[in-house]
Amino acid sequence: MIDFTRLLARDLPQPAGRFGGLPRWNFVGGNNDPALVPVEALAEAAARTIRAEGRKLALYNMGEGPMGHPALREFVAGKLESQRGIAGGPENVLITSGSLQGLDLVNEVLLEPGDTVLMEEHTYGGAITRVQRCGARVVGMPVDADGIRMDRLAEILGEMRSRGVRPKYLYTIPTIQNPTGSVMPVERRRELLRLSAEHGVPVFEDECYADLLWEGEWPPALRGMEGGEQVIHIGSFSKSLAPALRLGYVSAPWEITSRLLACKDDGGTPSIEQMIVADFFGRHFDGHVRHLKEGLRRKLDVLVAAVEEEFGTSAELSLPKGGIFLWITLPEEVDTSRLAEAALAEGVAINPGAQWSTDSDNARRSLRLCFALPPEEDLREGVARLAAVCHREFGVPLHGANKARRSA
Amino acid sequence: MIDFTRLLARDLPQPAGRFGGLPRWNFVGGNNDPALVPVEALAEAAARTIRAEGRKLALYNMGEGPMGHPALREFVAGKLESQRGIAGGPENVLITSGSLQGLDLVNEVLLEPGDTVLMEEHTYGGAITRVQRCGARVVGMPVDADGIRMDRLAEILGEMRSRGVRPKYLYTIPTIQNPTGSVMPVERRRELLRLSAEHGVPVFEDECYADLLWEGEWPPALRGMEGGEQVIHIGSFSKSLAPALRLGYVSAPWEITSRLLACKDDGGTPSIEQMIVADFFGRHFDGHVRHLKEGLRRKLDVLVAAVEEEFGTSAELSLPKGGIFLWITLPEEVDTSRLAEAALAEGVAINPGAQWSTDSDNARRSLRLCFALPPEEDLREGVARLAAVCHREFGVPLHGANKARRSA
Repeated sequence: MIDFTRLLARDLPQPAGRFGGLPRWNFVGGNNDPALVPVEALAEAAARTIRAEGRKLALYNMGEGPMGHPALREFVAGKLESQRGIAGGPENVLITSGSLQGLDLVNEVLLEPGDTVLMEEHTYGGAITRVQRCGARVVGMPVDADGIRMDRLAEILGEMRSRGVRPKYLYTIPTIQNPTGSVMPVERRRELLRLSAEHGVPVFEDECYADLLWEGEWPPALRGMEGGEQVIHIGSFSKSLAPALRLGYVSAPWEITSRLLACKDDGGTPSIEQMIVADFFGRHFDGHVRHLKEGLRRKLDVLVAAVEEEFGTSAELSLPKGGIFLWITLPEEVDTSRLAEAALAEGVAINPGAQWSTDSDNARRSLRLCFALPPEEDLREGVARLAAVCHREFGVPLHGANKARRSA
Repeated sequence: MIDFTRLLARDLPQPAGRFGGLPRWNFVGGNNDPALVPVEALAEAAARTIRAEGRKLALYNMGEGPMGHPALREFVAGKLESQRGIAGGPENVLITSGSLQGLDLVNEVLLEPGDTVLMEEHTYGGAITRVQRCGARVVGMPVDADGIRMDRLAEILGEMRSRGVRPKYLYTIPTIQNPTGSVMPVERRRELLRLSAEHGVPVFEDECYADLLWEGEWPPALRGMEGGEQVIHIGSFSKSLAPALRLGYVSAPWEITSRLLACKDDGGTPSIEQMIVADFFGRHFDGHVRHLKEGLRRKLDVLVAAVEEEFGTSAELSLPKGGIFLWITLPEEVDTSRLAEAALAEGVAINPGAQWSTDSDNARRSLRLCFALPPEEDLREGVARLAAVCHREFGVPLHGANKARRSA
């Protein structure tokens, strides 16, 4: 018998366990609402495009090159230009297998052990762990209800400069920030680009959720603004359509894209899903996204009512301006990592703030609830169970039914 | 302006160029025959499965866990058991985004800089470069018309043992070897497993092409034989269906699979393609593969006739026992790397032997022609052009129309 344990590489993650099914009340992960998947239109798009172009599946990348399916790149380029202010055309859009692959490729091209990366103090946990796995150090940028605080960022960059440290990039989710749900106003965006240029630190903009903004005029993407030409921008179809598709995209200066492409040695992003999304969104993007946002907004209302009902004034809510999650801060005595563990034992899964923060102490009493997946009934039940566990473990909420405090 | 060149990680591959289209006569890459893609049946499978299960696309991995879509894992498990002798059931099949992802995950889990890996002296170029990129050293195992020479392998392992070197794994493509097209007889397979156990070196078996064996009883997979329980086995749907799908699988001991799964942090392998393949192959595997092999065999016959016509006795052919490529050895005076460059300038793309060998000198005068993609007319034209370039550059073939020598 070969002893594999003696052959393994060092520093591997812990082995995975057998899949035991999803938690009964599942408030984690960027899942979407199953009832809002446009099943019939996707089935038609699939049949139509496979009949029209299926023979090309015999070739890697359908013979259309490693940047991705041209029809999908044209759709993305059009959307980026009309909605986000980003020019450049389809020849500068790289389709990736989820925006996660975009993140991984940017890290592969830019990061080395010992490097420094700036991130919002509360941000996507997967982005934090990926940077750390590259051996780079993550430094948090303080945020408020409008995103990164530029006064504090200027201080941090100045202090770093005085120590001779230049971060490799500054990662931000400016439009529906994950997890706080904030949208950075245009004035701050200008200031961010100014600081980026002054300190020679590229901006890496993640717009995974931007399609799901509730209402009103959204600010342009950082990459779409004057002085934003050097921003690296990624986006996704996971939130606007479905995460099981694994499709995302990168829009970046060619000097970066040509490097990402050289490292993208996966044999190509799957083609059938690209064909389907190009066809479906080419016909139905506006209508689908409007319908999706209406549904998600209703679910957010149900969730907020349930949290106010169950947690009362104990819960401070950051009301999101779009998207699929709600960021909640509980009283000092609550440790949400312990709460998450106790709740999971009773079938309720939540993201504790520590997982979504550059400094795990900093969000000890915060948590993220994703509300797109559970049916309305489950949103209510899950929150009631979470409140019961929280009361049992930490003595809060004392009582519900008082209006919770809202911020943002 | 930020100077990105100062921010890049070290040792990156050269930046990619803009895609300029495929070569006119394209004999490279594991492409398939566009005329043999079952377009109508795939369109029906796509529409049917999306209608039946499309709502689950709202969840990462369709909520079915990170090992892959259960219906596809069941199909693979059944095929592995009935055709390759591999037991274990669907709970031990990991679906990957192409078998390339399987290769990458195995390398991530097992390799560290300074390690040694054994590979057939002529083998898949992508496997060589991936191991080298991990900082590991590739050592070639001599092959003949029946695959790895076990006498020589025993010597190499003995010599390594005497120096205290234990390779991390031994990579082999035993069934339709790439590029030679050989099939390892069962006696050699037994001897290979014996040597693996004696030296504590795991076997990593790549069966990408095994579905495309022309005829007769195939030997069982190494993983399906007595003593093969510790073999790491990967396979693919790229060759039996279409490479643009990006679907493959791993069957391995759980102590390895649990590690691969922990490193598979891609958000899941795309689900729609898994649903389509599970449905289509669940209904049509035998019929489709039979039809595909008939078509490929006809193309091989056309290619062989063209090579014999144009190269005469100058070309020694390794007639493959299945698959999509022909391995050719030319006279001493030919350097196929130079030939490939000169031919590409005239629109004919080939794989020079040096790219497909652990020691680039070792196959200086060999080349690989993939014959699935070009129509028959292009097979003939491309070979005629290749012969003309070869004559111009190296003085051979002197004349065609003599029967080429065949081996294997």
